[in-house]
Amino acid sequence: MDPTRIEKQLNFIVETDKLKDVFRKTRPIGSEKFENSAEHSWQVALSAMLLLEHSNEAVDLLKVLKMLLIHDVVEVDVGDVFHHHKHKISDLHEREAKAAERLFGMLPPDQKQEYIEIWQEFEARESPEARYAGAVDRLMGVLMNAQNGGGSWVEYQLQMSTVLKNNRYIEDGAKPIWEQVEKMVSSLEQQGVF
Amino acid sequence: MDPTRIEKQLNFIVETDKLKDVFRKTRPIGSEKFENSAEHSWQVALSAMLLLEHSNEAVDLLKVLKMLLIHDVVEVDVGDVFHHHKHKISDLHEREAKAAERLFGMLPPDQKQEYIEIWQEFEARESPEARYAGAVDRLMGVLMNAQNGGGSWVEYQLQMSTVLKNNRYIEDGAKPIWEQVEKMVSSLEQQGVF
Repeated sequence: MDPTRIEKQLNFIVETDKLKDVFRKTRPIGSEKFENSAEHSWQVALSAMLLLEHSNEAVDLLKVLKMLLIHDVVEVDVGDVFHHHKHKISDLHEREAKAAERLFGMLPPDQKQEYIEIWQEFEARESPEARYAGAVDRLMGVLMNAQNGGGSWVEYQLQMSTVLKNNRYIEDGAKPIWEQVEKMVSSLEQQGVF
Repeated sequence: MDPTRIEKQLNFIVETDKLKDVFRKTRPIGSEKFENSAEHSWQVALSAMLLLEHSNEAVDLLKVLKMLLIHDVVEVDVGDVFHHHKHKISDLHEREAKAAERLFGMLPPDQKQEYIEIWQEFEARESPEARYAGAVDRLMGVLMNAQNGGGSWVEYQLQMSTVLKNNRYIEDGAKPIWEQVEKMVSSLEQQGVF
């Protein structure tokens, strides 16, 4: 017997519980362990809600939150890839698309379609909501690393120019957030981190 | 010099990062470690979004998500209290209210007021949004424990009747979710867990 709608939804929630065990390259502030993609997903959704007024364009907050709550779900299959290293994996996009198909495919068809479209919109970064959500997503790593005295930037020996270049698109979504990022990075430079 | 609006918002995000280090009594599915309140907050917001159609009453999803993204923030100061033990701490409500005042007080005044009110609304469980959010919040622990063969219910030697009684208000927010909970608990009983 096919699972009912609610059973499908619960199966999806159970399957994506694995995100609590997918580790990023950043650490929570002051922590020795790496943070996982589930706790990151909470923090980025919370932050997008609180920083809304800094979006360059008017955005639908509900859509932004939906995007951010599911933006990392594909990592259940693909794992987290440090964004400074994304260019190193040539078929990353295909692998993520396949993961989205499998995972959102666990939901009832209407929800599968809705969430695949929202995930694709986030990835494409072409709508105001995706630009703003992408900016806040990128802010998270910056904030963790800045608070951790350089964090994974130091561990991976990244140059300041690389950090600024790879996070630059924050400015496309939220200029006031980008200004804060520039301040954080510049303060680390003054401390001799870079 | 007083922090600017965005500095206050970022300070709040930094302070509540500590939620990644507040541990609950439940474990992620198949995990040895306890889950933290940050990853739980992601999962409950995701679940509320996906299970919306099962709410007993029409609800504003954006308000539900706001509630759930901040519902555990007070635990930064108070810690997580196993809901089966909440009656054991007589001044819990006062301690949580004090924590809410301190933490949301880090935000600009308009946001402080908005989020304290949302948090109080969640706690009071008197609005349709709060009843639905509360139901999904409670579902999370049930789902983790059911998937973990009884989980913390077994560790704390809870009786089936206690588990059902203490989660019963799920029914006030979402009857179809409550029916699933009854099935999960009854399946554990058949397996001899209780």
